[in-house]
Amino acid sequence: MKFTVNQVAAMLGGEVRGNGDEKIVMLAKIQDAKKGQISFLSNPKYEQYIYTTQATAVIVKKDFVARKEVSCILILVDDPYISFTTLLEEYHKLISFQKSGVEQPSYMAENSTIGRDFYRGAFSYIGSNVRIGDNVKIYPHAFVGDNVIIGNNTIIHSGVKIYADTRIGNNCVIHSGTVIGSDGFGFAPQEDGSYKTIPQLGSVIIEDDVAIGGNTVIDCATLFGDATIIRQGVKLDNLIQIAHNVEVGKNTVIAAQTGISGSTKIGENCMLAGQVGIAGHLVIANNTGLGAQVGVSKSIKEPGKRWMGSPAIDFNDYFKSYAVFKKLPDINQRLRELEAKLQNVQSNSLSVD
Amino acid sequence: MKFTVNQVAAMLGGEVRGNGDEKIVMLAKIQDAKKGQISFLSNPKYEQYIYTTQATAVIVKKDFVARKEVSCILILVDDPYISFTTLLEEYHKLISFQKSGVEQPSYMAENSTIGRDFYRGAFSYIGSNVRIGDNVKIYPHAFVGDNVIIGNNTIIHSGVKIYADTRIGNNCVIHSGTVIGSDGFGFAPQEDGSYKTIPQLGSVIIEDDVAIGGNTVIDCATLFGDATIIRQGVKLDNLIQIAHNVEVGKNTVIAAQTGISGSTKIGENCMLAGQVGIAGHLVIANNTGLGAQVGVSKSIKEPGKRWMGSPAIDFNDYFKSYAVFKKLPDINQRLRELEAKLQNVQSNSLSVD
Amino acid sequence: MKFTVNQVAAMLGGEVRGNGDEKIVMLAKIQDAKKGQISFLSNPKYEQYIYTTQATAVIVKKDFVARKEVSCILILVDDPYISFTTLLEEYHKLISFQKSGVEQPSYMAENSTIGRDFYRGAFSYIGSNVRIGDNVKIYPHAFVGDNVIIGNNTIIHSGVKIYADTRIGNNCVIHSGTVIGSDGFGFAPQEDGSYKTIPQLGSVIIEDDVAIGGNTVIDCATLFGDATIIRQGVKLDNLIQIAHNVEVGKNTVIAAQTGISGSTKIGENCMLAGQVGIAGHLVIANNTGLGAQVGVSKSIKEPGKRWMGSPAIDFNDYFKSYAVFKKLPDINQRLRELEAKLQNVQSNSLSVD
Repeated sequence: MKFTVNQVAAMLGGEVRGNGDEKIVMLAKIQDAKKGQISFLSNPKYEQYIYTTQATAVIVKKDFVARKEVSCILILVDDPYISFTTLLEEYHKLISFQKSGVEQPSYMAENSTIGRDFYRGAFSYIGSNVRIGDNVKIYPHAFVGDNVIIGNNTIIHSGVKIYADTRIGNNCVIHSGTVIGSDGFGFAPQEDGSYKTIPQLGSVIIEDDVAIGGNTVIDCATLFGDATIIRQGVKLDNLIQIAHNVEVGKNTVIAAQTGISGSTKIGENCMLAGQVGIAGHLVIANNTGLGAQVGVSKSIKEPGKRWMGSPAIDFNDYFKSYAVFKKLPDINQRLRELEAKLQNVQSNSLSVD
Repeated sequence: MKFTVNQVAAMLGGEVRGNGDEKIVMLAKIQDAKKGQISFLSNPKYEQYIYTTQATAVIVKKDFVARKEVSCILILVDDPYISFTTLLEEYHKLISFQKSGVEQPSYMAENSTIGRDFYRGAFSYIGSNVRIGDNVKIYPHAFVGDNVIIGNNTIIHSGVKIYADTRIGNNCVIHSGTVIGSDGFGFAPQEDGSYKTIPQLGSVIIEDDVAIGGNTVIDCATLFGDATIIRQGVKLDNLIQIAHNVEVGKNTVIAAQTGISGSTKIGENCMLAGQVGIAGHLVIANNTGLGAQVGVSKSIKEPGKRWMGSPAIDFNDYFKSYAVFKKLPDINQRLRELEAKLQNVQSNSLSVD
Repeated sequence: MKFTVNQVAAMLGGEVRGNGDEKIVMLAKIQDAKKGQISFLSNPKYEQYIYTTQATAVIVKKDFVARKEVSCILILVDDPYISFTTLLEEYHKLISFQKSGVEQPSYMAENSTIGRDFYRGAFSYIGSNVRIGDNVKIYPHAFVGDNVIIGNNTIIHSGVKIYADTRIGNNCVIHSGTVIGSDGFGFAPQEDGSYKTIPQLGSVIIEDDVAIGGNTVIDCATLFGDATIIRQGVKLDNLIQIAHNVEVGKNTVIAAQTGISGSTKIGENCMLAGQVGIAGHLVIANNTGLGAQVGVSKSIKEPGKRWMGSPAIDFNDYFKSYAVFKKLPDINQRLRELEAKLQNVQSNSLSVD
């Protein structure tokens, strides 16, 4: 990204104070920025830095009034933080989508198709009968199984493994090492103590605008026609386990190392912290919040509540109980003393009688 | 799978009611099935669907008596559920083992061998001195290190990494991203606070009929001649950690994200739920059941018990204690009140004296 | 490793009792060792085995006095355990670094460089503008993104994925499936309930002497110029989550399946057990010990303490409280009895009054 200050200001609908022809090549924090970089001032407590920053330009609020001399160029906007985020995003897109063309050797079955502006990294594999949209980037060592469908503007990072029959929407990002469509964990116990594999014949559907971190695993559904479903706008972190036939509702966010057991349906706009575990065949209401390491063993029907503990109870109640848990040895001692005293009182009472 | 109803009936030892020449291409649930698909009726509460299903054929119990008109073909068998499972399994095998031949480019050292009916996907890697049996499928991006031995009918999915000297049995399935034989976590503390690596020179043995999910890691043993061992019939889910020198007993089932520390021996026919953690150098008795998120810090000697909590205690005891845990603020309050009342009673007693 | 006993003794600064020309090809435990192997006797309780071992040579303490006839060759040293560890390490290096040259097909951009004594496995990928030092081993299916810098004597195992701009030091080992530099989990909530991606533009720095297990994930930092940092001598086990902007201090050891949330700084020489979870934006003091499955929600300021529980409390206090937790139903019952008795005493007192 090498733009003039004027170009950046135009992109943000902002006004320039200073030489708009100066060039910007990078973004940085105001206290760290160097010449050629652009930064922003949003939080007043950082104001001091605008008088000392090396940044070529700083994005500030329209009504900013400098109390000392400012040597950088200013771009005046309505909301500096949002403007900076917009710039970051544009820059990120430029980086994310900059790869293009085919690196050799790579593999794509003859009956598969990929749209315009693609990248197919070296050692990437695209199986039979695959349909891929426009502006899709398939990094090296990615595996795309037979019959997979991928929408537009989706990025499949290096080493992602997508099993046959998976469907992935538009504007998705899937990070390295993530596995999509592996067999669900289904085994029927036999009389001799061994297990018979229950074949897993369903698929995985990932809707639009989904982001998935690294080394996460999403199993396929058990039966034909069924799918494990990740709804639009869901964000999954690293090392998450999504079992067969799970459904994760729209715009739900799940932090790292959380596991969802088979056939559980998570509502919309939920927030699950890290290392949460949810048992199978449950329904979790919309807007549910689960604290770190929570264990959920029953369905959650009331939407919008926060939970803590294993098994999960009301968030505040957990901490109230845990505060007493810390004092349990003391409580036990006090109970013993009470018992002794009461024994004493009873003896006295008896003697009084 | 494109068979006639007669062929399927013959496979199941069943009897046909209707046109046995009709063709079946798919399996599905009775309520969802479409023309060309086959389904089953086992649970009486689904009987209603047999009168409306679009399925070409439905597997029913021998003694099934229709109470309304049935338009699908019937296959009469002893146990419809088992018959359907058999079909699912056959179908799954057809799918799992349908790949064959070599896709290029792929890599196999000259002194390595692979049996009949193999599949070697593009970008699969087979190192030196490897011995692989018949009907083994090595998917793209799988890595098979030097001196590895693999039995017959085993499937190694895309991106599985098998370190040198690993042995894998017959009829195993290993899902994408799983790592077998990485170095155990062994470091000797030095006086300056740093750590010296304890070299990991052992191997991993995976016996027959083992299934392993995606992104699981199984470390090799520490010393020459020692092995981390996964016994016959074990089923491991996704994202599991199996440390160096662990042994998992026959037919034990372990759910996702569970971790077993170094040198621990798990018995036979155990069931470990998800996110369980087991400390090192322990022995876990046969038929042990561990609830989700359990932490085990001592050996379990009595077989057949169920455990909960961290550290683990008796399953039912945990829930009884946890029920009181939820009421701890109330208990604390009641204790305070008792103390006050007793204080009062004692004062009164004293005044009485 | 095929050395004479004399060569091994020279390497260890030891003295030979017996035929120093005998050859050794392997290392083993004293009770298991066979002809051609070398072992050690450190712990006196194993002394019995030196009289029956098949080992060709055994390393013993200088002042060892045999109480029966010994048929193996002896190497006398100051500390047999350290000597054996030294041998193990030498052997391990021989194995680890024995691969060399290029296997084809492999990919390396023209403007990238790699030093002497390298190994580039088949299907390994090295992007643009990469700088790699001497004696570096890049196994098959490893991905090294653009602008990555790697020091000397570092081993990148099969299927490791290193995103662009990562820096890795000397003498590091990174095991299969580990992902370094994936996007941090940053999403800004929007008014309609959806999330806008906060672009992750920082990098990862891994200093010298770091070991990382399999399928671990280390996210990059959020802003330009920032880095997620793994300091010198850190040892990370398998399946660990290191979020964006985390710093792990020198010589800290972290066991499997632990997760560290964004921007948290872990001190030096800490020991984190398995399945630990640490919230974001915390500071953990040097020499902190965290028990298995601990959840840390506040900064730990006092160095050298051990913690247990979720949220974490003092290690010993946790077990004292947990001991009472197990008796909670009993405590509840005793409390009820006390209440009844006191009620009774009060009634009596009243009647006395």
